[in-house]
Amino acid sequence: MTHSTCLPTSGPWAEIDRAAITHNLNWLKQRLPPSSPGQRTRLWAIVKADAYGHGLVHALAALQDADGLGVTTLDDALRLRSQGWTKPLLLLSAAGVPADALADPALGELHLVIDEVTQLEQLESATRRPGTGTLRAWLRHAGRLSHLGFDALDYAAGFRRLQALKAQGRIAEAGHLHHYAAAEDPESLVQERQEFARLIEGLPGPHCTGNSAALCGPLPEPLHPGGHWLRCGLLLYGASALPGATGAQLGLRPAMSLRARLVALRPIRAGQSVGYGDSYRAARDTWIGTVGMGYSHGLPRGLWERGRVRVGEAERIVPLAGRVAMDCFSVDLGPAPREQVGDLVTLWGQAPGGSALPVETVAEACGTIAAELFTRLTARLPLRAI
Amino acid sequence: MTHSTCLPTSGPWAEIDRAAITHNLNWLKQRLPPSSPGQRTRLWAIVKADAYGHGLVHALAALQDADGLGVTTLDDALRLRSQGWTKPLLLLSAAGVPADALADPALGELHLVIDEVTQLEQLESATRRPGTGTLRAWLRHAGRLSHLGFDALDYAAGFRRLQALKAQGRIAEAGHLHHYAAAEDPESLVQERQEFARLIEGLPGPHCTGNSAALCGPLPEPLHPGGHWLRCGLLLYGASALPGATGAQLGLRPAMSLRARLVALRPIRAGQSVGYGDSYRAARDTWIGTVGMGYSHGLPRGLWERGRVRVGEAERIVPLAGRVAMDCFSVDLGPAPREQVGDLVTLWGQAPGGSALPVETVAEACGTIAAELFTRLTARLPLRAI
Repeated sequence: MTHSTCLPTSGPWAEIDRAAITHNLNWLKQRLPPSSPGQRTRLWAIVKADAYGHGLVHALAALQDADGLGVTTLDDALRLRSQGWTKPLLLLSAAGVPADALADPALGELHLVIDEVTQLEQLESATRRPGTGTLRAWLRHAGRLSHLGFDALDYAAGFRRLQALKAQGRIAEAGHLHHYAAAEDPESLVQERQEFARLIEGLPGPHCTGNSAALCGPLPEPLHPGGHWLRCGLLLYGASALPGATGAQLGLRPAMSLRARLVALRPIRAGQSVGYGDSYRAARDTWIGTVGMGYSHGLPRGLWERGRVRVGEAERIVPLAGRVAMDCFSVDLGPAPREQVGDLVTLWGQAPGGSALPVETVAEACGTIAAELFTRLTARLPLRAI
Repeated sequence: MTHSTCLPTSGPWAEIDRAAITHNLNWLKQRLPPSSPGQRTRLWAIVKADAYGHGLVHALAALQDADGLGVTTLDDALRLRSQGWTKPLLLLSAAGVPADALADPALGELHLVIDEVTQLEQLESATRRPGTGTLRAWLRHAGRLSHLGFDALDYAAGFRRLQALKAQGRIAEAGHLHHYAAAEDPESLVQERQEFARLIEGLPGPHCTGNSAALCGPLPEPLHPGGHWLRCGLLLYGASALPGATGAQLGLRPAMSLRARLVALRPIRAGQSVGYGDSYRAARDTWIGTVGMGYSHGLPRGLWERGRVRVGEAERIVPLAGRVAMDCFSVDLGPAPREQVGDLVTLWGQAPGGSALPVETVAEACGTIAAELFTRLTARLPLRAI
């Protein structure tokens, strides 16, 4: 036999490189605008959606030098506290958060984003007060994204209500938060920045802006006195937020490599079909390799039309052959493959020998973005930290 | 205030109707070909990928009357045994399964599918024997799907090796397994059936065919003596496997309803944009509702272009407005909405008032199939059984 009689596993997994996440954090921190007293720009490292699919605990280990961590659920906030995180936490939406739950002293210094007037009402009517000095609220500017938040018509009134809560000692601080809608377009980024600056001009309190697409170029100077935070998610995981550029081209290191194994090799003849609905037809006599990963692991079914993967020790790039199935997909290995059953397949990230397959390339091949590829991986795909 | 001050939750969930799964099983069982002694057609209920995203334990509760349950991982097989399932189990691939692990008496009557020659070698070289009378092996016919299995060139030789294992008492039975590549096409279905029947003609042992697309019409008669099993997955969950037909049109009941809540409502003016990259522009003054579910829960980001959901007590159908974001998406509620923050949104399945939004329609709107929509839901989406 030329191949292993006991495969280590046939199932796929995602390898998480914690050092890459730390590298990416430092890449950002080194570029922060110079400090001035009381004006140091601070960085929220966003770890929502299980750290963009990379595993909350793995990201936590890698992001110890962030100024704060940002999540979308109270459960994640409490999980980070129980794992030992003592610096600030940002809860990116107050939607569905019972105001009384915010009095839990385990939450520590919690920053809460207010998206909507009912969330203000809840804070105002809470019967239990958060520990003094711990809860800080940020009012969300709707801006061009326009799906959540307050705009020119109601922002000032909303902010006055937060200031009243501060005066009553119910919150420790009231700040201003903006999220860019099209930061990958430099002109749009400038317009959005100016609009937000005008909105908060003359109001007290710190301000906070994001997202990753706004942080690929020179990091922005504060728009306003009172304290400045930047939020960053995707870049921490090594993927670019700019179309046409990969994370590696920006100086980032990809933190996730998606792996599977060849579970079968079969020769087929020219003209023979492969996959559901005869979706691939061999143009010549060739070998089909089948990989033990499918759409039930979170791989996009649509990848089959233009997708490619790296296989075997040579880390060859080969095209998919036929539709992705629930548990497997096939590749066309050509007429004389050297690969064998059990060989490694890299779907994106770094192959062990050093070749890369950028997640951005895979995202483009299936008409989406890296953030969706990362976060759609399912519970059937284990994460392994290195 | 006109709305709840304490939302039950802002996060999305999938409601699983176990009675619907039982109904769908019975719909199949009632249509099985008439029994004759030793020839009763039996049914494998396929519960791989966490029961197509419906939850293995929920499916187990609903499928007590199946003849056997089919999974893809040894872990799932052991989980079903620990939950009390005593009837046969089908492990749909031997890839990556250490042959010695098959000697675990907790596995009970296990049927193992052999995809590839290395899997035969592993069975032959196993040092620990499975308990006599428990392990049954099925040889997979590659057929037109052609990604796994044996074909006309090597099927007979592979089957002889399984027969030798049976003669040695290492396995209790050797059978024949086929999976259709294009069963939704009646002509292709007949061709595939005929090809498989010719392949196994004159060979002993039971035969097993699937998939759901082959079971939407009259259920097939046995092709061969020796015992007949049918495999069914998708139909059990109430979705159709035929293009252009919904599960409900076939007489099935959808088992999953995907739910979320409105977390914000905002008025916007004609011409104003919504979502990343200005992806939606309001044609008139309107209200935007934002829903607390995004692509990190497994909702396809691509749904935004043609997607629609049901909202509020009236269960109105409204279109998406702008790209799906990681944690939320927006809908256009029109100029005078009656919905309010906290209202229910149904993404697919049954709305509480009785309106439906077939998962097949949603799948079509984003260029995929129901099975991908079900199985791509992530660990961030809780399942609630009813």
